[in-house]
Amino acid sequence: MAKNRVLPYPIIAVNDADTKHLFDNRYGTGQSTLDGILRATNILLAGMNFVVAGYGWCGRGIAMRASGAGAKVIVSEVDPLRALEAVMDGYQVMSLKDAARIGDVFVTATGNKSVIARDHFLKMKDGAIVANSGHFNVEIDIPSLEELSQSKKKARDFVEEFTLENGRKIYLLAEGRLVNLSAAEGHPAMVMDMSFANQALCVAHLVKKKGILKKKVYPVPNNIDKQVARMKLKTLGVRLNRLTAEQKIYQAGWKEGT
Amino acid sequence: MAKNRVLPYPIIAVNDADTKHLFDNRYGTGQSTLDGILRATNILLAGMNFVVAGYGWCGRGIAMRASGAGAKVIVSEVDPLRALEAVMDGYQVMSLKDAARIGDVFVTATGNKSVIARDHFLKMKDGAIVANSGHFNVEIDIPSLEELSQSKKKARDFVEEFTLENGRKIYLLAEGRLVNLSAAEGHPAMVMDMSFANQALCVAHLVKKKGILKKKVYPVPNNIDKQVARMKLKTLGVRLNRLTAEQKIYQAGWKEGT
Amino acid sequence: MAKNRVLPYPIIAVNDADTKHLFDNRYGTGQSTLDGILRATNILLAGMNFVVAGYGWCGRGIAMRASGAGAKVIVSEVDPLRALEAVMDGYQVMSLKDAARIGDVFVTATGNKSVIARDHFLKMKDGAIVANSGHFNVEIDIPSLEELSQSKKKARDFVEEFTLENGRKIYLLAEGRLVNLSAAEGHPAMVMDMSFANQALCVAHLVKKKGILKKKVYPVPNNIDKQVARMKLKTLGVRLNRLTAEQKIYQAGWKEGT
Amino acid sequence: MAKNRVLPYPIIAVNDADTKHLFDNRYGTGQSTLDGILRATNILLAGMNFVVAGYGWCGRGIAMRASGAGAKVIVSEVDPLRALEAVMDGYQVMSLKDAARIGDVFVTATGNKSVIARDHFLKMKDGAIVANSGHFNVEIDIPSLEELSQSKKKARDFVEEFTLENGRKIYLLAEGRLVNLSAAEGHPAMVMDMSFANQALCVAHLVKKKGILKKKVYPVPNNIDKQVARMKLKTLGVRLNRLTAEQKIYQAGWKEGT
Repeated sequence: MAKNRVLPYPIIAVNDADTKHLFDNRYGTGQSTLDGILRATNILLAGMNFVVAGYGWCGRGIAMRASGAGAKVIVSEVDPLRALEAVMDGYQVMSLKDAARIGDVFVTATGNKSVIARDHFLKMKDGAIVANSGHFNVEIDIPSLEELSQSKKKARDFVEEFTLENGRKIYLLAEGRLVNLSAAEGHPAMVMDMSFANQALCVAHLVKKKGILKKKVYPVPNNIDKQVARMKLKTLGVRLNRLTAEQKIYQAGWKEGT
Repeated sequence: MAKNRVLPYPIIAVNDADTKHLFDNRYGTGQSTLDGILRATNILLAGMNFVVAGYGWCGRGIAMRASGAGAKVIVSEVDPLRALEAVMDGYQVMSLKDAARIGDVFVTATGNKSVIARDHFLKMKDGAIVANSGHFNVEIDIPSLEELSQSKKKARDFVEEFTLENGRKIYLLAEGRLVNLSAAEGHPAMVMDMSFANQALCVAHLVKKKGILKKKVYPVPNNIDKQVARMKLKTLGVRLNRLTAEQKIYQAGWKEGT
Repeated sequence: MAKNRVLPYPIIAVNDADTKHLFDNRYGTGQSTLDGILRATNILLAGMNFVVAGYGWCGRGIAMRASGAGAKVIVSEVDPLRALEAVMDGYQVMSLKDAARIGDVFVTATGNKSVIARDHFLKMKDGAIVANSGHFNVEIDIPSLEELSQSKKKARDFVEEFTLENGRKIYLLAEGRLVNLSAAEGHPAMVMDMSFANQALCVAHLVKKKGILKKKVYPVPNNIDKQVARMKLKTLGVRLNRLTAEQKIYQAGWKEGT
Repeated sequence: MAKNRVLPYPIIAVNDADTKHLFDNRYGTGQSTLDGILRATNILLAGMNFVVAGYGWCGRGIAMRASGAGAKVIVSEVDPLRALEAVMDGYQVMSLKDAARIGDVFVTATGNKSVIARDHFLKMKDGAIVANSGHFNVEIDIPSLEELSQSKKKARDFVEEFTLENGRKIYLLAEGRLVNLSAAEGHPAMVMDMSFANQALCVAHLVKKKGILKKKVYPVPNNIDKQVARMKLKTLGVRLNRLTAEQKIYQAGWKEGT
């Protein structure tokens, strides 16, 4: 919108704050996505082929926690850097087409649309479970799933059973909406506190800078990010090291130590 | 009861089957205990001090999954071998008295009574959460908690808030009953299938051996255990290696290879 | 030998002591096997397909540590129970024939012979690394590897490069001998201390019981095992819980709590 | 230097390339630091208190791999965001002063000087091991260690034993130089390939842009980073998803999906 000059007022990109996306997106989404899937299905994650589409902060969190629950995680990405990172983190990385054949559970976290689409549904095993924890209910191409199916019925709360024309059953969770918000309770307060603190302080910052800020997208001021982190650490009783005067000079300099 | 000669009929110790305790107790309890705690409290496990009392199969499963969810696991044991194993598995191991001061969540899985008792409650931090995933509602000494408290109230479903006379609050989950059965749905079908298959085959075995078996406690016949495991692997599509004739001879022998 | 009545004196199966196989075989072998492989090859484990043949205590340790180093672990087993356990621990489980095609590193820890054999070598990728951390140098069928090869040469210390007739190269570590002993320094003193303490106390026990013990294989007396564990915990500064009198009664009884 | 206007020619900050610091610094340093420590000492990592000073990419890698080797990782930081991240990753986070009392192994990876200093040495347990995997041999304040010691001797290759005046022994690895380069072989070729590819392509870029680039520090061009990642994935046989035309439009737009 900024690029199209249609932004009506200054914006702070709160989702890009370090105390937001590094925490709520990762540790919050990681835990709450599994929570949503378990409340909806009560499946055993241990030993399952758990496919994560998208290895951004949300996807990383989901993969980390699914792996920690004993699942065999498979990551699918469009970005070569993220794909490599997933490889080194110990996950299998493959195209969704290949993953579709072997996955037991699929979770989308890409921010894009039609990530799991017609071709993937056709390759899935009987009993595959499909959920979204990314953007809206467009990441899974539900109209295609409907089209491929001869019937559907509610299997449990938040679980719809689609019987495909090939006879296989696919289970769609929470109508493709964010499974952690729909089938569980969203992120715990203990991680949303940071996101909300950020947003509150950013609103205060916007008010203070009224008339100075332009109709652009601004990053979260670094001092706000640090302040939120410090407050959080204090509640956790965690103590930091402090740089000595000597260390501050060393860090800024380039004459010493090389 | 067998020792006291009061066992009225032959018993097979189904809980000791490998396909039972190695799986349902460990992977089942591990996942479902966390599930129960999350459904009851919606806390963020990442970064928490998560105390597990008892490092048997259930305790191992709980510790493994809590660690996989980002918690810092502290194990408490009475048995030196299990305590050592927990150390090597990367957990902090300490007495419950020491753990009581720093734990955010406490889970008992010992099979004993009054594991978390008066002295521990008095040391706990404000906000500590206490749950049981072991035996009955005797692992946590609830009468002592009642006695130490000036008031209690329901905080959420399955969460009772006790306000101690020292002003701190302790949250007891599911009245000290098995938190995975009370606050979640118990183990997933995907791991109970093995326990139930075991039990069904053992009952058939008891019937077949009627009159032959004595009023004793028998272990699960090894062939039943293996049969259950084979059936389960088949459903998972997992292929084993097979020993060659040569390998069978080598394995049984002692003349070759030294 | 006992079965064949050719055992010349009483034996205590020290390898079966809990303070031996649960620790030295698992945590010792786990770490030192990777250590041997790294010293021999200096490969990056992160992202590799790391095949472990055998999921006994050694295999479990190797898998656990390879996974902890970022490798994608594939387990191969003959025993259905162990195979299932590997599945639930989050590893891929498949026959060695299937694993042979995709493995980057292969480690045997089965106690059997010709585990990696002719057919497997023929399926391996160019550059595959093969090592043994189990029994003697018979787990890998080296004569077959020699036969299949048009040439071999030393690539690095402890690394022999075999060029197969199909043009692919296979790297054999430490001549198929125990890679942790050959290419690294074996287990750290910090875990061998327990094994040696066990052995010393068992020898003392044999001497004390001279004339009483028969020409049979005896298990390690449980009190020796516990004593070793207690001594080790003391050096680590780890404190156990102690059972109260009430708890001891509860544990032994069957009238209460059911 | 750029700030001081003393930079004599254009520079590309190759260390900041994603295919460099996300990989070589993290997965390379993680593995090779442990490798260096093990080759120098042959200690058992399982169960140890392993202190990592600095939670940048190197520190994250070291912590991740030490934890994967069974150590109990303690992180120390000056930055609140990184400290919080370490907490959520499941590590204990504390000041170095507190960590000094309980650590078994200390590794610095901060890029600063005198990180482990006089006060810390005085608090350390007998037998503590100190190594550096960050900057130069200034991260550990070796002159202070010398001053505090009544004697020193070589214990093993790359291990110097300092006997403090309080009688305790501290083991300094590799004279405080980078332990992975000194005591092991540095990073594996499999991760340096990316760093070197990056550097080679950046040099080509500098040549091509001769006369155009100013005496400033430039970031690595994003297309070089992606190219390196793509080449690496190809050698690993990993397939990416591709964005459909529809997905590209969706990603860039803001009208749909909200």
